[in-house]
Amino acid sequence: MASAIRVAPTKAARAMSLLRTVQYTHPPSCPCHGNPSHHHHHKPSNSLLSHAKRNLQRNYATPVDLSRQKEYAFEMAASSIRFGPGVTKEVGMDFKNMGAKRVCVVTDSTVKHLNAMKQVQEGLDQEGIDYIVYDGVRVEPKDTSIKEAIAFVKPYAPDAFLAVGGGSVIDTAKLMNLYTCYPNADFLDFVNAPLGKGLPIDKPLLPLIAVPTTAGTGSETTGSAIFDLASARAKTGVAHRALKPTLGICDPLNTRTMPSAVHASSGLDVLCHSLESWTAIPYNERIPRPQNPINRPAYQGANPISDIFSLQALRSTVKYLPRAVRDPDDHEAQSEMLLAATLAGVGFGNAGVHLCHGMSYPVSGQNRGYKHTGYNVPYPIIPHGVSVAVTAPAVFRFTGATNPERHLAAAEAFGVDISNVKRESAGEVLSEAIAKFLEELGDQPRGLKDLGFGKEHIDELVEGTIPQKRVLMLAPGLAEELGEEREQLRKLFEESLVH
Amino acid sequence: MASAIRVAPTKAARAMSLLRTVQYTHPPSCPCHGNPSHHHHHKPSNSLLSHAKRNLQRNYATPVDLSRQKEYAFEMAASSIRFGPGVTKEVGMDFKNMGAKRVCVVTDSTVKHLNAMKQVQEGLDQEGIDYIVYDGVRVEPKDTSIKEAIAFVKPYAPDAFLAVGGGSVIDTAKLMNLYTCYPNADFLDFVNAPLGKGLPIDKPLLPLIAVPTTAGTGSETTGSAIFDLASARAKTGVAHRALKPTLGICDPLNTRTMPSAVHASSGLDVLCHSLESWTAIPYNERIPRPQNPINRPAYQGANPISDIFSLQALRSTVKYLPRAVRDPDDHEAQSEMLLAATLAGVGFGNAGVHLCHGMSYPVSGQNRGYKHTGYNVPYPIIPHGVSVAVTAPAVFRFTGATNPERHLAAAEAFGVDISNVKRESAGEVLSEAIAKFLEELGDQPRGLKDLGFGKEHIDELVEGTIPQKRVLMLAPGLAEELGEEREQLRKLFEESLVH
Repeated sequence: MASAIRVAPTKAARAMSLLRTVQYTHPPSCPCHGNPSHHHHHKPSNSLLSHAKRNLQRNYATPVDLSRQKEYAFEMAASSIRFGPGVTKEVGMDFKNMGAKRVCVVTDSTVKHLNAMKQVQEGLDQEGIDYIVYDGVRVEPKDTSIKEAIAFVKPYAPDAFLAVGGGSVIDTAKLMNLYTCYPNADFLDFVNAPLGKGLPIDKPLLPLIAVPTTAGTGSETTGSAIFDLASARAKTGVAHRALKPTLGICDPLNTRTMPSAVHASSGLDVLCHSLESWTAIPYNERIPRPQNPINRPAYQGANPISDIFSLQALRSTVKYLPRAVRDPDDHEAQSEMLLAATLAGVGFGNAGVHLCHGMSYPVSGQNRGYKHTGYNVPYPIIPHGVSVAVTAPAVFRFTGATNPERHLAAAEAFGVDISNVKRESAGEVLSEAIAKFLEELGDQPRGLKDLGFGKEHIDELVEGTIPQKRVLMLAPGLAEELGEEREQLRKLFEESLVH
Repeated sequence: MASAIRVAPTKAARAMSLLRTVQYTHPPSCPCHGNPSHHHHHKPSNSLLSHAKRNLQRNYATPVDLSRQKEYAFEMAASSIRFGPGVTKEVGMDFKNMGAKRVCVVTDSTVKHLNAMKQVQEGLDQEGIDYIVYDGVRVEPKDTSIKEAIAFVKPYAPDAFLAVGGGSVIDTAKLMNLYTCYPNADFLDFVNAPLGKGLPIDKPLLPLIAVPTTAGTGSETTGSAIFDLASARAKTGVAHRALKPTLGICDPLNTRTMPSAVHASSGLDVLCHSLESWTAIPYNERIPRPQNPINRPAYQGANPISDIFSLQALRSTVKYLPRAVRDPDDHEAQSEMLLAATLAGVGFGNAGVHLCHGMSYPVSGQNRGYKHTGYNVPYPIIPHGVSVAVTAPAVFRFTGATNPERHLAAAEAFGVDISNVKRESAGEVLSEAIAKFLEELGDQPRGLKDLGFGKEHIDELVEGTIPQKRVLMLAPGLAEELGEEREQLRKLFEESLVH
């Protein structure tokens, strides 16, 4: 019944590989493959064989420039997610089930006093699991703070990680895990190019369980970790699927402690994650197509699976964020926002973000002294979600023309009646819907001016945005030519002064 | 900045654990937790502390029957998915990237001749990876065929698996992987109770990449493997998250070879996966709540994340399945059906299926000689999708009253104008929409009579359904009392004779 074919690879087989790669390479000019959406309009009836032949002929005539080839596939990866009020405590059993014996618990000096940490510690104690607590995570981590965290954990030699906190905590834990598994790597080896070498992570890391205590970053589902690289005075990070947590434990009881202002700003991060991933360039317009799947970026552009998550997260955020901000006892809205943050995390974690996020990094990094209402910290702060949302009205007015249908669908999610809106107005209509939403949310700046920026700061903001290649490459409508790109960014910042 | 707390678990800590478990146990009678949907109607403002106290008091008064506790959490797990025309070949690089050196390729005698296998073998050859091919998979596998497959692979001692084929192939590969990793386990150890012991899988298995060649089972994303247990004359299987493939490679070029009849029947499987998971009892009505997360079943009941996938898959199937069946050159529709099958896989893989699937097993197992049009095989066959869909009109008429909103939403996905439909008619309206859809699809039986069953066979069909506890427990409206359940099933089969 069963037959076995044993194959030892031959040199000839390997020699054939390059030729085959060329044969099966569909140049972007091929109508059937360069633009799959084309299939909506015609049905290619050519057989694969004749197709390959045609390509072969073309390839002989004009060699394919691999660096200009468009992507033809997308990959969807996400952490497993467990969701429920009170699930935090199960984490002890999870580590026991996976055989972990030495867990490094990562948190910050605020969260360590909260109920989430109490539940975590009780869960670990119940199962008799040895653990160490690192509570030195810096909010908005820097390379230096991450290096300190790595140096701290190395002597303990953990066999698993547990992050309890917001995005800063989870991101720091991801990098502690990475550099524990690659003890001899240079810190810049895995950091996104061009600031780092952008090497792919080529082996599995230790198990990491993430317990978010804010409803914002979605970091519990994603393979990215963001920090400030002090030497370059820029936000950058590491992004690779291998970095994603093994399990995200989303416990609505853990976000009840957020002050109203934190609900608002972390919710605005969710809003922009969903809007940006929904409107990012399609995956099959991204250039170049990776020659090895390990090089397919986590931020791939919009794709049919990320779309489902992003649009659902957008609808939930529009519905529940205002309630979560207004009423600290509205636990349903808070719970829905935690779910929305996670859904948006799966969406942008596989599709990416673009202009709002790219422009936000210099906005928060070049803060001229603004301190956001409701943040009781002894230093100036523009919360991440605020810095992201402040450019959103200008950004989506700009991107509207690239894909009016998607911008109209987003406007509809805000409750706009789009039945009589013209395609040319899609960006404007979405822009207005966002501005209205921000105003009604309350305590939000009406533009960069309210954050202390003026016309005179725009050049510096633009120069701080340019290095964010990884997200800018997904921005629809942004010019490839640097001079033109600079001009577009300048205009976006100008329009964001007051909206 | 960083402080370290090292904790060695004490006996006292462990002794406290039972008490704490009781303290944090919310009995189903608690209005805030037994039924989270209750939160839509009121907002509990009690603090956690007073809440815990109240429960404690209640627990002293009436001891909690843990076996009757409702679930309070859900878990979403799915394989990573890569989707694109031509991606099959990347699999060689994937194995190389993960360091695999000896791959067991699992397929069947038909698929081994198809282009998918050619691409796979070329991909492996290019990377110089040693592999063995097992092509003895039986369509609709039996325990005996799976044991043969396991015996075949053991001496090869693979470090990874690759499944190329439909659900039967992928399921067989999952079980080959499982029993290769547990070489001393008894075959029934992991098989679903009550037929097997239903032990949880407590360690990671070898990497498994699945390349589906049909658009139906969604097995590339799920943690379940189904087979016939000859001794019990029943369908059963193994279901655990650990069984899910590492990666599903969905290549629309691989489903182009399906004959029209296979498009139809595998598409009907997708239709029922989405309908059943969408209407399954909610996760928080499932009993009992597991005392350890490793015992939380993969089939958990409908939950907010599975809902997104199930409804999207339903909409796509209604839109694209008729096109895919009618026109073999409609590659867009075929591609969308492959995506829908995968989305439905994520949906039902985390939520479960219920009556259509539970009743389908005796229907196909007790086939009295029917051979489906378009299947060129030398023996009688009721394709899985056909046996599943044949009871759908009766099933959803029956379940309609349990959740009219969901049944109306499903009817709307079929294009029914539900604006004037009464809630009481939800089941009837959905039932009619499904019957119409089946009729228009063509070549489908108009009930069990067309498949060769009569009234006289119903008792046997009912008795063949009763053991399908794992899916029947998710059926909304089905009685717990065996006599009543039997009566309900009898009526469902009777109504399915002609629809």
